Amino acid sequence: MDNQGLKDDILTKALELFADVGFKQTSINKIVHSLGVSKGAFYHYFASKDDLIQQLVSRYVDSVVNYPEEIVNNPNLNALEKLNQLIHAFIDYKSEKTVLRERYKKLAAVSDNYELRERVYIDVISRAKEPYVKIFKQGMAEGIFDIKYPEQTAEVWLTTVVKFNTKVSKALEQKNIIANFDERVKFMEDLLERLLGIEEGSIKYEAAYRDYVKGMGGILQ
Amino acid sequence: MDNQGLKDDILTKALELFADVGFKQTSINKIVHSLGVSKGAFYHYFASKDDLIQQLVSRYVDSVVNYPEEIVNNPNLNALEKLNQLIHAFIDYKSEKTVLRERYKKLAAVSDNYELRERVYIDVISRAKEPYVKIFKQGMAEGIFDIKYPEQTAEVWLTTVVKFNTKVSKALEQKNIIANFDERVKFMEDLLERLLGIEEGSIKYEAAYRDYVKGMGGILQ
Repeated sequence: MDNQGLKDDILTKALELFADVGFKQTSINKIVHSLGVSKGAFYHYFASKDDLIQQLVSRYVDSVVNYPEEIVNNPNLNALEKLNQLIHAFIDYKSEKTVLRERYKKLAAVSDNYELRERVYIDVISRAKEPYVKIFKQGMAEGIFDIKYPEQTAEVWLTTVVKFNTKVSKALEQKNIIANFDERVKFMEDLLERLLGIEEGSIKYEAAYRDYVKGMGGILQ
Repeated sequence: MDNQGLKDDILTKALELFADVGFKQTSINKIVHSLGVSKGAFYHYFASKDDLIQQLVSRYVDSVVNYPEEIVNNPNLNALEKLNQLIHAFIDYKSEKTVLRERYKKLAAVSDNYELRERVYIDVISRAKEPYVKIFKQGMAEGIFDIKYPEQTAEVWLTTVVKFNTKVSKALEQKNIIANFDERVKFMEDLLERLLGIEEGSIKYEAAYRDYVKGMGGILQ
């Protein structure tokens, strides 16, 4: 049997079970039993349930922060153009309904999956920071962004984005009305403009985000 | 036996065990056994381990957001004066080394206590928002704060404060060096000034926070 194949099968099955019955309720026994493989096979690839979770988090975060390098490295764009393109690329990416992403979204919405959620938050923020920090520094050098602390600025922005996305994903998953959507998404533009010390209207977040949510069948208030 | 007394004993013992051996490792059996009481006594006060945790969170959050109303309601202070006093009051409060607070800090630092940590985050932020939103709105009415979305602004500020405090508490608990302390605490002042659209130097956060950390024996880098 192909080794990477079996390892992937275990990761995929674990993700499915975590999303369906919750994190605490899914034992290693349940995972191997569902796949009809031995516990030995599991321990060949994973040191523990904790290790499995860490690898799941890495696999997800890899897919999330696989950002378009061609935007960040494009020599023909200024920092503000790059930033708006990067934001749109992330929103477009969110619109792709892959099976993997669907399962992760479901997982994030399950209320008892605290551990996975906290780990994903921390990993996504620490890794997605890189393109933002690069663009922020370019904008500082170009004199178009008034930022003093690019690393911390990127952290605050990404923390707010992740919180907002989680709220929206949860509402989409549960088919709930997304309350105060207008105000919330306009706040995101306002926040980033303040953080970067740039003019009102410079950040284009609202229209693309609204299209994304409508495309996912979201009910806006 | 005094009922509130027994309930308090159970909450206190659970907190102690969660902090010492971790959240997952502490069963209801372990809690009642440590106190020499029956499982029936436990279920008289708590519907489940989950209910116990929710009550622990509430007790802690009550103590944290017990903010000085006299600042917020003082008719002789403008919004910026109130804001700086409120920030200092929270820092002073953090300096009080009560047994309860010490245990909670230890608990927050234990890496497997994801669930409690997420619940405390959400509860603290949603409840501590109130005094900030009041002061922000006063500042908007006085024309000294340039804010469009006071609720969301308070959320971003408090999320950043809680993350920063958690990092500092963890470093204090583990006697680690607090890396880039200077930059981080100055960023906090800068962030709040941007969020409120006020002049550089208006927010006084750094000196008091530095004194607090030094008073707690923190090692600054």
